[in-house]
Amino acid sequence: MKALVYHGPGQRRWEEVSDPQIIDPTDVIARVDTTTICGTDLHILKGDVPEVESGRILGHEAVGTITEVGASVTDLKVGDRIIIPAVTNCGKCSYCKKNQAAHCQSNPWGVGWIFGYMIDGTQAEYVRVPFAETSVHRVPEGLSDDEVLYLTDALPTGFEIGIENGNTKPGDTVAVIGAGPVGLGAIMTAKLAGAGRVITVDMDDNRMNKALELGATDKVNASDADAVEQIKALSNDGLGVDVAIEAVGIPATFETCLNVVRPFGAVANAGVHGKAVELPLNKLWISNISIATGLVSCSSVDILLNMVKAGRLDAKAMATHYFTFDQFEEAYDLFSNAAEHDAVKVVISRA
Amino acid sequence: MKALVYHGPGQRRWEEVSDPQIIDPTDVIARVDTTTICGTDLHILKGDVPEVESGRILGHEAVGTITEVGASVTDLKVGDRIIIPAVTNCGKCSYCKKNQAAHCQSNPWGVGWIFGYMIDGTQAEYVRVPFAETSVHRVPEGLSDDEVLYLTDALPTGFEIGIENGNTKPGDTVAVIGAGPVGLGAIMTAKLAGAGRVITVDMDDNRMNKALELGATDKVNASDADAVEQIKALSNDGLGVDVAIEAVGIPATFETCLNVVRPFGAVANAGVHGKAVELPLNKLWISNISIATGLVSCSSVDILLNMVKAGRLDAKAMATHYFTFDQFEEAYDLFSNAAEHDAVKVVISRA
Amino acid sequence: MKALVYHGPGQRRWEEVSDPQIIDPTDVIARVDTTTICGTDLHILKGDVPEVESGRILGHEAVGTITEVGASVTDLKVGDRIIIPAVTNCGKCSYCKKNQAAHCQSNPWGVGWIFGYMIDGTQAEYVRVPFAETSVHRVPEGLSDDEVLYLTDALPTGFEIGIENGNTKPGDTVAVIGAGPVGLGAIMTAKLAGAGRVITVDMDDNRMNKALELGATDKVNASDADAVEQIKALSNDGLGVDVAIEAVGIPATFETCLNVVRPFGAVANAGVHGKAVELPLNKLWISNISIATGLVSCSSVDILLNMVKAGRLDAKAMATHYFTFDQFEEAYDLFSNAAEHDAVKVVISRA
Amino acid sequence: MKALVYHGPGQRRWEEVSDPQIIDPTDVIARVDTTTICGTDLHILKGDVPEVESGRILGHEAVGTITEVGASVTDLKVGDRIIIPAVTNCGKCSYCKKNQAAHCQSNPWGVGWIFGYMIDGTQAEYVRVPFAETSVHRVPEGLSDDEVLYLTDALPTGFEIGIENGNTKPGDTVAVIGAGPVGLGAIMTAKLAGAGRVITVDMDDNRMNKALELGATDKVNASDADAVEQIKALSNDGLGVDVAIEAVGIPATFETCLNVVRPFGAVANAGVHGKAVELPLNKLWISNISIATGLVSCSSVDILLNMVKAGRLDAKAMATHYFTFDQFEEAYDLFSNAAEHDAVKVVISRA
Repeated sequence: MKALVYHGPGQRRWEEVSDPQIIDPTDVIARVDTTTICGTDLHILKGDVPEVESGRILGHEAVGTITEVGASVTDLKVGDRIIIPAVTNCGKCSYCKKNQAAHCQSNPWGVGWIFGYMIDGTQAEYVRVPFAETSVHRVPEGLSDDEVLYLTDALPTGFEIGIENGNTKPGDTVAVIGAGPVGLGAIMTAKLAGAGRVITVDMDDNRMNKALELGATDKVNASDADAVEQIKALSNDGLGVDVAIEAVGIPATFETCLNVVRPFGAVANAGVHGKAVELPLNKLWISNISIATGLVSCSSVDILLNMVKAGRLDAKAMATHYFTFDQFEEAYDLFSNAAEHDAVKVVISRA
Repeated sequence: MKALVYHGPGQRRWEEVSDPQIIDPTDVIARVDTTTICGTDLHILKGDVPEVESGRILGHEAVGTITEVGASVTDLKVGDRIIIPAVTNCGKCSYCKKNQAAHCQSNPWGVGWIFGYMIDGTQAEYVRVPFAETSVHRVPEGLSDDEVLYLTDALPTGFEIGIENGNTKPGDTVAVIGAGPVGLGAIMTAKLAGAGRVITVDMDDNRMNKALELGATDKVNASDADAVEQIKALSNDGLGVDVAIEAVGIPATFETCLNVVRPFGAVANAGVHGKAVELPLNKLWISNISIATGLVSCSSVDILLNMVKAGRLDAKAMATHYFTFDQFEEAYDLFSNAAEHDAVKVVISRA
Repeated sequence: MKALVYHGPGQRRWEEVSDPQIIDPTDVIARVDTTTICGTDLHILKGDVPEVESGRILGHEAVGTITEVGASVTDLKVGDRIIIPAVTNCGKCSYCKKNQAAHCQSNPWGVGWIFGYMIDGTQAEYVRVPFAETSVHRVPEGLSDDEVLYLTDALPTGFEIGIENGNTKPGDTVAVIGAGPVGLGAIMTAKLAGAGRVITVDMDDNRMNKALELGATDKVNASDADAVEQIKALSNDGLGVDVAIEAVGIPATFETCLNVVRPFGAVANAGVHGKAVELPLNKLWISNISIATGLVSCSSVDILLNMVKAGRLDAKAMATHYFTFDQFEEAYDLFSNAAEHDAVKVVISRA
Repeated sequence: MKALVYHGPGQRRWEEVSDPQIIDPTDVIARVDTTTICGTDLHILKGDVPEVESGRILGHEAVGTITEVGASVTDLKVGDRIIIPAVTNCGKCSYCKKNQAAHCQSNPWGVGWIFGYMIDGTQAEYVRVPFAETSVHRVPEGLSDDEVLYLTDALPTGFEIGIENGNTKPGDTVAVIGAGPVGLGAIMTAKLAGAGRVITVDMDDNRMNKALELGATDKVNASDADAVEQIKALSNDGLGVDVAIEAVGIPATFETCLNVVRPFGAVANAGVHGKAVELPLNKLWISNISIATGLVSCSSVDILLNMVKAGRLDAKAMATHYFTFDQFEEAYDLFSNAAEHDAVKVVISRA
């Protein structure tokens, strides 16, 4: 089969590789019908994630069709169309039993994200899916691949790590700092928690306009000298937002979150950070705030799927560019320069 | 001043009465600018609520303007436009401290609903409001009376007693049995809890169409022999809805709720019942369901107001007919025959 | 091997039967080291549970040692000492994924309790355990069988169906109607929710004294004409208890629960009922109470085990009589007349 | 009357001052019967809290008897024995309505702690209590002053800011770093959340032994090179504690909390910090932890009082030394050198 293979920093190729095989009785093999590229894939390509070995097939998001099942797989059948989330769930370790698969203890790495990282990923014609029956979801009849594709990562991350970790409650004002895929995922799912005002904060006006289309009610340009004051002015009581979501991954945006959150509010960090930040506990000890961090567990995929089925969530609205597998490298070229193409997420399909 | 006075079963008149006076230092007097009629007022007029004395001014929902404040009122000022909820909150009894004003212990009746019931109500040119600072809400600038009027009862009842008591969670399927004002209140606020499918169930097709306009995704006619099966077929797993809300008040609709709820689902009773019902514990002991009852506490008015301010809740959409105070008796005539006029809620204003 | 076999109403024998075999790759076979008898077993013997077939091995509670594992079992090993809970958890249906195994959909009966009911049970020298890796728990080193035996049913039922379903919060007053094993399970685990006063209510003074030993703070004799008033007088505000737990299974005790619960309180039904009850919705619609029913999911076994390990829960305190397998029929004789022997629970061990 | 007056850094005197007067209609005046000294009082005396003016009466914890009530006080009466918590609750601002009085907006300082800080405090023969009816609690009959004294600050802080902010759940392992009054308050109230193992961590063995008396199950000496490993080894899964409570207020102990908490665990900061700390988001972004900070709201006093009444909480166990008002300066001398006297908390009473 063909797959997108990582060959060390800066090196990737859509090339011929061996087909995946069943290893454990709980595995399935799926034909990949549709996949996408994540910002994390770009980080790996930059060499920021040195534990990824050369020769690894990248990718951790896909919709596919089962072609083979392991010996203990009884509910899933060959031919089933499935959503393959970024995080696998063994269903039996103490973390997965609590729907906290982000820290699944059933693989040697102690985290639930392994596709395109510790094992071969989904940017391929076929993929081996471990712990299939406790990890994947059948695609409901009548839904196309792109209508469920982003339920594999961007939307559950925005919802679980942004909206849920932010303890968002009905009527809350939510500020989302950063309007990339994860920030937009938070904006699109804020309504699942009954959010009131949802403020997109970014420096790129195009992205903020996209955010307004997808559910934000207000925008504030992060470059404005009084951005913090503008955000606070939009809050319910003027004292700050109830929930501030960091979706960039740098100290400055984390600090903005601390500056705009009200007493008894929450900061939810969804960005991937490369540096430590300063936490002014000398001021914050009295402020009754909470700060949450984390990797997605994909525990919300069922919920998001129910919303898609009910017509309440247009999950494909994040897609801006469509490609086929033979254009895989072009898709990477475009997504690597997302801003200049007004790209949010790509869709890459078999044919 | 003039007021709508109850003179025993079947007897009501818009007539001249004495102006209300401050009694307790925590009272305010408000000029009533806009009010409405509740199904409960019709029950009182039928004689179903014998504890209401002849001579009582009816009504428990209003938007008004403060004309006088008691000695210990410091935050509210003469001239403030206020929302006067159905339930007063003393702010200091063990129930009100937990935002459970439905059972406020600071008045001799042990419940928080007293307007138009135990004390004179809001269907009048002026009204005395007890425990004003802990009960009323300022109308945010820019909002008209009818945009906040139904935050006094129908919407908080639908939300607190239907959606919240039903423990509604993101993605849930909710069936609302009965499409009167409280049922519609539940339908309009289901999204605050992130509901997926919302099914309106009634025998009146006009009402169900109104429900679809206001946020329901599906309708099932309660007269259909297979109504229960139709409702279950719309649920996420086919085993029943997550939340069944009773908004009629008769044994048959309560039984429907028990029949359509899935294991681990919830029945929220919002209807006012005149009879006991049979609870088949011989079947239900194993079914892991919950049943909740109750009177609204109006604890959600702040939340609903935040949603209105954010443009997420069109609270006035329930209004179908507009009157002025001099047409008060006509308003009653029409609302008493709501079905034949396709009336949901009336708005009755000063001028 | 030998096992306790049901031969139709009133007929049971400890007799020779075939050894159990692995059927599904997720099964294990365990040697039963210690088991017990449940009130439900007595109901089956009375013929109250007609779906149980003649020839069925009874019992759904055990501590054992693994002797054989299915093909897909990787974490559990032969020789592991395990707790075998009453309810099996498939780990992958929509209910089990939410830790609601009481309604596991992975077997044809749609409930999670199948041992000694739909399949052969634990009152035997060996037992087949389906879905083993997602259902059983290893016995922590240093704990004896009887220290964890009641984590299989009585304690999780008391906790999940009584204390948790009653939404028990710190400082709450809890009334437990019925001082049998499930009632005592609720009393012993009330502290896990931070309960304040815990009132045991029964007609048998010996049982209530046992309850006081196990954690109740007060007792009220259900035969007293003013029992309801006595219970209310013990509540935090005199208006009723926060949580009323029904642990008998008859209309009268359910009615007592409705009579003693305060507004905004909860009734948790843990009793197995044979008849419908009357629910006076005409009074209760305004009372803001909740009623919950259900079968245990054994989702709390990990929690209870943590409490045992921490020395906070003396799980074996419920044991009153000890037997060996060759005394199985004597154990049944005694437990069938529990009251006259002051028996709460028996322990029946291999040697 | 006499009072303990602050006269600038290092200067305090038990001296004659004017009696307090009713200012607002919601005030009461109380005779102070019993009070205590808090670590915060020592910080003020060191000059660490420069906003405290010279001439201020110190103290924010007391049990007293009402001698005069304001015009709008109706429930409280002269002669009532009351618990006066550290934080006053106006009952009507958006924070107090949510039981978040720590950030009460009804006074110019925007926080709920004002006694002995912004207004005269409780280390006096009489004290003015603002917002009395929504702030104080009647002492239940039969309880002595010292049985409820620490419900004013140390116990609610330990519970709300440690145990509750740590989202402590039944069976959880809790590590409490620091065994001063707030740390001990967390240890004593951990059982209200059903904690399993509770580990006291300190460098002073005497304090840790006191902690073991008051409810800790294990101790780890913070000076040990492998203290972090020892703490992790005591956790349920070996991966870290579920809840780590910081009760010291320095960067090193906060860092210890980050080091010992498991994925999906919580760090609750209860210490008062003078410096910023480093937050290694580069490691923590993936770790699914939460961090909470805050000042107590005294929202749990009712709960704690229910526990004392039920005999489940020996609130006076924290008292180590007793004084009378004429020994006020001796009490301060001793408490300022608490460690060398094995002092935890003092009790200072009228006669």
